[in-house]
Amino acid sequence: LAELLECVPNYSEGRDHETIKRLSACFDLPGCTLLDTQSDHDHNRSVFTLVGQREALLKGLTASVRVAVERINLRSHTGAHPRVGAVDVVPFVPLSGTSMEKAVAASREFAETVAREFRIPVYFYEESALRHERTNLENVRRKGFEDLASVIETDPDRAPDVGEPRIHPTAGAMITGARRPLIAYNIYLRTTDVSIAKSIAKSIRHSSGGLRYVKALGLDIPERGCVQVSMNLTNVTATTIPTVFEMVKSAADGYGVAISDSEVVGMIPMAALVEVSRRYLRMHTFRDVQILELRLLQDAEPQEVTS
Amino acid sequence: LAELLECVPNYSEGRDHETIKRLSACFDLPGCTLLDTQSDHDHNRSVFTLVGQREALLKGLTASVRVAVERINLRSHTGAHPRVGAVDVVPFVPLSGTSMEKAVAASREFAETVAREFRIPVYFYEESALRHERTNLENVRRKGFEDLASVIETDPDRAPDVGEPRIHPTAGAMITGARRPLIAYNIYLRTTDVSIAKSIAKSIRHSSGGLRYVKALGLDIPERGCVQVSMNLTNVTATTIPTVFEMVKSAADGYGVAISDSEVVGMIPMAALVEVSRRYLRMHTFRDVQILELRLLQDAEPQEVTS
Repeated sequence: LAELLECVPNYSEGRDHETIKRLSACFDLPGCTLLDTQSDHDHNRSVFTLVGQREALLKGLTASVRVAVERINLRSHTGAHPRVGAVDVVPFVPLSGTSMEKAVAASREFAETVAREFRIPVYFYEESALRHERTNLENVRRKGFEDLASVIETDPDRAPDVGEPRIHPTAGAMITGARRPLIAYNIYLRTTDVSIAKSIAKSIRHSSGGLRYVKALGLDIPERGCVQVSMNLTNVTATTIPTVFEMVKSAADGYGVAISDSEVVGMIPMAALVEVSRRYLRMHTFRDVQILELRLLQDAEPQEVTS
Repeated sequence: LAELLECVPNYSEGRDHETIKRLSACFDLPGCTLLDTQSDHDHNRSVFTLVGQREALLKGLTASVRVAVERINLRSHTGAHPRVGAVDVVPFVPLSGTSMEKAVAASREFAETVAREFRIPVYFYEESALRHERTNLENVRRKGFEDLASVIETDPDRAPDVGEPRIHPTAGAMITGARRPLIAYNIYLRTTDVSIAKSIAKSIRHSSGGLRYVKALGLDIPERGCVQVSMNLTNVTATTIPTVFEMVKSAADGYGVAISDSEVVGMIPMAALVEVSRRYLRMHTFRDVQILELRLLQDAEPQEVTS
């Protein structure tokens, strides 16, 4: 079975079009699709959204590291966004049919390749973290390239997880790891009273005592003449979309307000939608492999890695 | 964008393992997955379930016609199932991102190839039918190969849609067309009274005044200690699964009976599950292209057809 992953590499270049073009060209290969490219001039940073089979992704990523090493020099890099490397952060996200363990394994293989071929020290974060304090990205990236370069050889707490404790002179270091998909999910309410949306957001979000994997805000949406509970769902396996929907519905009902509709902003893994059928149709025994399109993807031959 | 189709070719050979093996080997190519092979000795017939990209499917199908022409002789064929050809019926089913029009176009291209390369006359049925009376498969296949061979040259009502009105001496004729996916969907009720399941089945099925695209039976399931409304859904775009579920739920409630769970038997196209989210989460603006896995499939390069 082919392993399907989402990958969202962050590069420290958001201004030079030629470099961005060469980076994105690395992913023009079978078994890999570049869904989105966002380049920010002020941050001087580009973020790609990729979906693909493990082998194809790793091949494209390695090629992109080569481009970044050749064309990005952190010693002369300026930008508002914190960063430690030319290829700064590379998260892997498991999709349908691929486990978190396999996403972690992909990050490990990528780290080994980058350390060996480019002599770039690598740090693991999120689900791939080998040290608990590195789970949170900001703990790994704090104070950025310049600070890391000055302490990496002497401070054991800042030693890399893979590779020698020596910063790459121009490309710095790299952070990689596996994480769950982030889903941007909004629910619209049939009222113009934003205080109701704010109150519901407060009741559902983790930081105020709500659901473990929900971040939420109440927003006024004047162009639609209504209000919105705007959410980030950080683990839809544990806190499912139906759970969130029903809790918001119940809270809104407490104000005599109905939900008009909801929306996913951007992309969503199929597994999150399958969960909706499991819940509302009570399809307790449904398996993802019953989905025709998914079988075609999973049975695909892993892409051969040739240079 | 790659066109994704399901295809379920029926071959008039269910006994000779070598022939069945050679037929199935035709689909061992990239962009095409053989999900299931069912061979029936009494019917002397094999049914393959395939999912794939249009070009890959057509390549595999054409190769399988070559095998069938070489190895199956309808003049000496015996079996309980009605048939007109060595390759008897080849339905194409559109999957996510592919329209019914494109499935019809695939059947037309396949028919032209088969008539040209193998001199087999071809008939269109279901959505591809060019004559209204050929919409229903049984109208095309009635009385089988022997009858068709005797009238095809003289009866204009039995003339093929593609190719000369002359039966292939050993391979007969072929029927192809596009149709909607068939979904086998069962709902279990928390009762042992099968009369309730039968009554609900009657109220929901088309033939008794119910929903247009639902066939239904009420069955006793003693091994689970409950009863089942067993259904075939023939057009889940028009009669959606949530519509069916809610109607059965409401009818069961009329007997004071709850639904314990439901199940899809076999495969289901992703679009049918997306509909569940649209309905229950009120996601009126959701588009299939927001599903990560689907983007990878749809952006795949069409498979090159090489021999």
